[in-house]
Amino acid sequence: MTTILPSYVQGAWWTPTDASAAVDVCDASTGEVVTRVSTSGLDLAAALEYARSVGQESLGELTFHQRAVLLKQMALLLTGRKPELYALSSRTGATKLDSWVDIDGGIGVLFSYSSKGRRELPNARVYVDGPVEPLSKDGSFIARHIYSRLPGVAVQINAFNFPVWGALEKFAPAFLAGVPTVVKPATPSGYLAEAFVRILADSGLLPEGSLQLVSGSVPTLFDDVRLGDLVAFTGSASTAEKLRASDSVQTGGVRFTNETDSINASVLGMDAAAGTPEFDAFVKQVVTEMTVKAGQKCTAIRRVIVPRAAMDDVVAAVQARVKQRIVLGDPRAEGVTMGPLASTAQRLEVLKQVARLQAAGGELVVGRTDAPAVLHADGTTALAPDGAFLEPLLLRFDDASAAAVHEVEAFGPVSSVLGYDTLDEAIALVRRGGGSLVTSLATHDPEVAVALMTGISAFNGRVLVLDRDDARTSTGHGSPVPQLVHGGPGRAGGGEELGGIRAVLHHMQRTAIQGSPEMLTAITGIWHQGASARAGGTHPFRKSLAELVIGDQIVSDSRTVTLADIETFAQFTGDTFYAHMDEAAAAANPFFPGRVAHGYLLVSWAAGLFVDPAPGPVLANSGLENLRFVTPVSPGDSIRVALTAKQITPRETDEYGEVRWDAVLTNQNDELVASYDVLTLVAKH
Amino acid sequence: MTTILPSYVQGAWWTPTDASAAVDVCDASTGEVVTRVSTSGLDLAAALEYARSVGQESLGELTFHQRAVLLKQMALLLTGRKPELYALSSRTGATKLDSWVDIDGGIGVLFSYSSKGRRELPNARVYVDGPVEPLSKDGSFIARHIYSRLPGVAVQINAFNFPVWGALEKFAPAFLAGVPTVVKPATPSGYLAEAFVRILADSGLLPEGSLQLVSGSVPTLFDDVRLGDLVAFTGSASTAEKLRASDSVQTGGVRFTNETDSINASVLGMDAAAGTPEFDAFVKQVVTEMTVKAGQKCTAIRRVIVPRAAMDDVVAAVQARVKQRIVLGDPRAEGVTMGPLASTAQRLEVLKQVARLQAAGGELVVGRTDAPAVLHADGTTALAPDGAFLEPLLLRFDDASAAAVHEVEAFGPVSSVLGYDTLDEAIALVRRGGGSLVTSLATHDPEVAVALMTGISAFNGRVLVLDRDDARTSTGHGSPVPQLVHGGPGRAGGGEELGGIRAVLHHMQRTAIQGSPEMLTAITGIWHQGASARAGGTHPFRKSLAELVIGDQIVSDSRTVTLADIETFAQFTGDTFYAHMDEAAAAANPFFPGRVAHGYLLVSWAAGLFVDPAPGPVLANSGLENLRFVTPVSPGDSIRVALTAKQITPRETDEYGEVRWDAVLTNQNDELVASYDVLTLVAKH
Repeated sequence: MTTILPSYVQGAWWTPTDASAAVDVCDASTGEVVTRVSTSGLDLAAALEYARSVGQESLGELTFHQRAVLLKQMALLLTGRKPELYALSSRTGATKLDSWVDIDGGIGVLFSYSSKGRRELPNARVYVDGPVEPLSKDGSFIARHIYSRLPGVAVQINAFNFPVWGALEKFAPAFLAGVPTVVKPATPSGYLAEAFVRILADSGLLPEGSLQLVSGSVPTLFDDVRLGDLVAFTGSASTAEKLRASDSVQTGGVRFTNETDSINASVLGMDAAAGTPEFDAFVKQVVTEMTVKAGQKCTAIRRVIVPRAAMDDVVAAVQARVKQRIVLGDPRAEGVTMGPLASTAQRLEVLKQVARLQAAGGELVVGRTDAPAVLHADGTTALAPDGAFLEPLLLRFDDASAAAVHEVEAFGPVSSVLGYDTLDEAIALVRRGGGSLVTSLATHDPEVAVALMTGISAFNGRVLVLDRDDARTSTGHGSPVPQLVHGGPGRAGGGEELGGIRAVLHHMQRTAIQGSPEMLTAITGIWHQGASARAGGTHPFRKSLAELVIGDQIVSDSRTVTLADIETFAQFTGDTFYAHMDEAAAAANPFFPGRVAHGYLLVSWAAGLFVDPAPGPVLANSGLENLRFVTPVSPGDSIRVALTAKQITPRETDEYGEVRWDAVLTNQNDELVASYDVLTLVAKH
Repeated sequence: MTTILPSYVQGAWWTPTDASAAVDVCDASTGEVVTRVSTSGLDLAAALEYARSVGQESLGELTFHQRAVLLKQMALLLTGRKPELYALSSRTGATKLDSWVDIDGGIGVLFSYSSKGRRELPNARVYVDGPVEPLSKDGSFIARHIYSRLPGVAVQINAFNFPVWGALEKFAPAFLAGVPTVVKPATPSGYLAEAFVRILADSGLLPEGSLQLVSGSVPTLFDDVRLGDLVAFTGSASTAEKLRASDSVQTGGVRFTNETDSINASVLGMDAAAGTPEFDAFVKQVVTEMTVKAGQKCTAIRRVIVPRAAMDDVVAAVQARVKQRIVLGDPRAEGVTMGPLASTAQRLEVLKQVARLQAAGGELVVGRTDAPAVLHADGTTALAPDGAFLEPLLLRFDDASAAAVHEVEAFGPVSSVLGYDTLDEAIALVRRGGGSLVTSLATHDPEVAVALMTGISAFNGRVLVLDRDDARTSTGHGSPVPQLVHGGPGRAGGGEELGGIRAVLHHMQRTAIQGSPEMLTAITGIWHQGASARAGGTHPFRKSLAELVIGDQIVSDSRTVTLADIETFAQFTGDTFYAHMDEAAAAANPFFPGRVAHGYLLVSWAAGLFVDPAPGPVLANSGLENLRFVTPVSPGDSIRVALTAKQITPRETDEYGEVRWDAVLTNQNDELVASYDVLTLVAKH
């Protein structure tokens, strides 16, 4: 008897003692039983509470960068264990390419969040959002927005199609935010999720309570979650609707994100006639999206929207490419490019939706709905009555306004071709989808791209413009990437995942903080103008990261600018702009009283005024930000600079870190001449 | 017979022909009928469709900056008409201070959005979010996030307490985003909303269809809204729950924001004992929040959380200040500092909630619940049986854990005092509110502030730290400001309004755009590296804003750096940092091969290489952003610069605008030396 798939809860592996309610999970190609699934007797409430207490505490001890380093270590670990994950993946019906999308794609999300976390977040626990907002004239009352992590647990309810990627794309941002995760995979492919969770759990890389796995159903989940928790659901709109209706979401303050059915479109531009590189790239992409994961992707193209005159060409080209490229079969057989659906139940469900499309006027122009002959693992070709195979199916709608084609999602290798006559019509057809995850446009004409984009962007979470310039390098219509938001309005669920740091912030609460500069400095860990500063002691360039404290300051001597200085600088740099060289012309300029010093002269002098020249912990000036020139400097004026340590960002894996300095240049009347941030690299010790 | 309050729909004023269902609205102090309200027969669906068609079109013709200029003109217009608005406002029970909060506060939101719109948004129709995301190694496939406006209508359902501010704080960001608004005021104060809408409608400043007013109920609203529309509700949690449950919100993709009951807290720090400036500021703030708008503010302090040992002091101080400062009466009477509640019905409702608090253990320690004697408009003091007056009421809970004090909102001049012993206990008490709009902390100890903040920030939309440094300049616990988000998690509704541009973006859809640099340039209006550029023609500094096109470029000659140059620059600027001056020490630095040129030398030379010196349309270098030094430059290396017009931002009210230039410095091996954006001011003609 097959054993029951374990769950990983409260730091230990768990299987039910009562197996009577367990469900069989079968190999998608052969129908053989792979495992059994049940959560009968599992104490979900205790698992969630464990996350909220133990998980929150262990993650709270780490900074964003420390969590980011762990994500990279997990990614490297999983990379080394890919063979066993690929072997299991093929049992779900995934080809090598499908497994690459799921497994390497999921690992890629970990790498990406590790890198972005260290480049785009501070090495701290709070994220500051937007600039300082002055709220009083004298600067004594200011404000800022911060993000702090939610105090609960992030629960994932995943779809069957991407057991690894679907879990890791939600886990990485939650982990980086410092919020523990409970993964609940879909039953048909849960054994693959169990495998990667086991690798991570065995590794010792996971902070205690930061990741748990529930292998099976969670009927009481919405009674057990509360304010501070999040639920991220990927699956059908009807299930999402039921979950969303729960009290904990409606009035209890639980954040609920869902990615659901989306009737995505791909539009062929008028300019992209047969024979153009765009036409070829478009057809290639349509076939790819129909066949990768056997079309079981929420981002797959369901509506192929083309100029009416090009419908025949498109159908013929798709037909030809399917014949040429697609070999249906057991993913373990050599040469197979398209596997079965996830289960025979799924196959029946897809056929039911295809029948609805046909009833609404869709004519089947590519593929057949009866059981196909497929390549088996042993190399023979035969019918596979226990498998879940289905040929790629393209339907043609001569009436593009048929409601079903814009509403029915056949979650398999199924697309429909629709014709349009004008760009406005193409836009209206895309919008009929009622909100999508992604639409792609194949056009090389920027005007067509802009016109389509203006009409459709508000109805899409992502839009890809495909043309000869990016056809080879495009990541593809159906591929969410960690850098970009994944989600869409309306029918697509209204949620957003990924998008780099945006998804990290989704696990945090934005709060406006008002107070004195001193308090804002204490709360954010970033020095604010008006807060106390320490000048006059050791030059801050002589302090290592370990010694430097925000607020450490140098206030320079003042230095007077002469006309000769301006002329010397002009001659040396070649910058003889009239505002520096011609008194009459400069005075005629609306911003200058007469000849003025070059802005770059002032910034260069400021460095001369604040720098401490001997070798020491400050290693390099790496950049400069937000420079604004405010008051012009005339010959005879003098300038001084105040340089204050503003933010300190040690690098976890280097012997140095970044120090951001607040630089303020003032003139002899204490008027602001210029302000900016200086970025330096400073040794840790 | 009093006339019925008109609505402003489809560009015209409308009143029902059938007055039988009209509701009387009474003066809050005298009970006199002010107006009558009914929408019997109003075609709401047509008004919404008018907004989606006519309103979207007229707003779509304007850029962000053009809309921002209109907001300022509206603000100036309303400023000149304040006397009539204040007169009407007093009929709602508002004192002069209350009216200032509502009317001047509302006008202030218009000014603030006008200013932020022009400073923080491009002079365009699409907003770009975040940096370029490279998606291919060769740069041919890149991505960006853009926001484009929602294609529908923003419907406001407002509370009775701030008829002007409540409407304008929602209108300003919607208008700036380019989304038309329908205002639905609360019946008791709808006549004041009608007055300001009439001023705007008569002025000709409103683009057609950009603002409509429905004076009365909208029972079919949720049947009439659809994907692309927004509803922003301010009011009770129970109403919000009903509205949110509608199909259009649950599955139709309508964005629904609500600000509801919030049991806000104010915490007195352990350090802030009686006699400290923080104690005084705290007590003053508590009394202000109890009495402004007669405590009818969603942001008012309901829970006064103080060290247990300080409870007596706090109660006594509040008692004393109420006696000293608060004069209850008709707002039209001289010297009145607190007006009535909005209606007698509201008074009964508040008393009902006070009784619940008393039943749960609250002891009334300041104020009485029976009808108070009040100052009338004629200067006499007497009972006001037709008015809605109520004294400020403070309850004391010796058991701070009583559920009612954390859950019951008495929407009037009512607060409760609770004691705590430890900071953890104070944090736990704040969190018991289940999510709040705002919490304030009175403390001068940064450690106390940081500890409290860490515990409570995720439960609050806003936190104010009050101490001696900001007590005089603080905008106050109860005042949302346009720059900061207004909203909160959980019980507070989970929404966000205001927060500057954040609220504008709430009216827009974020979309990830993938494509070639050429396409991204066309779609965003911002030049992207890799897109085509035009070098070699007229120097771009000789082109006015009217002539300049993004992609106009100058590629400079190259210039070789010598050791003598480095020494000259060091001597001239005083920047003798060892990396420029000492070969051995420089070579020992992990980032440098030996002595290298100063970064500021390179940037200064770059200006000399790209500048066109004679007077012309380029007026000034106003700043520089995102400078990063990548490859060090050694003596013998040469540099050149490519400067490309990246973004053009004409100013609506000036004869010039801003041009952002992409600057790329490369060396003789085409390695990247530095990259940055140069900001200039350029004449329009």
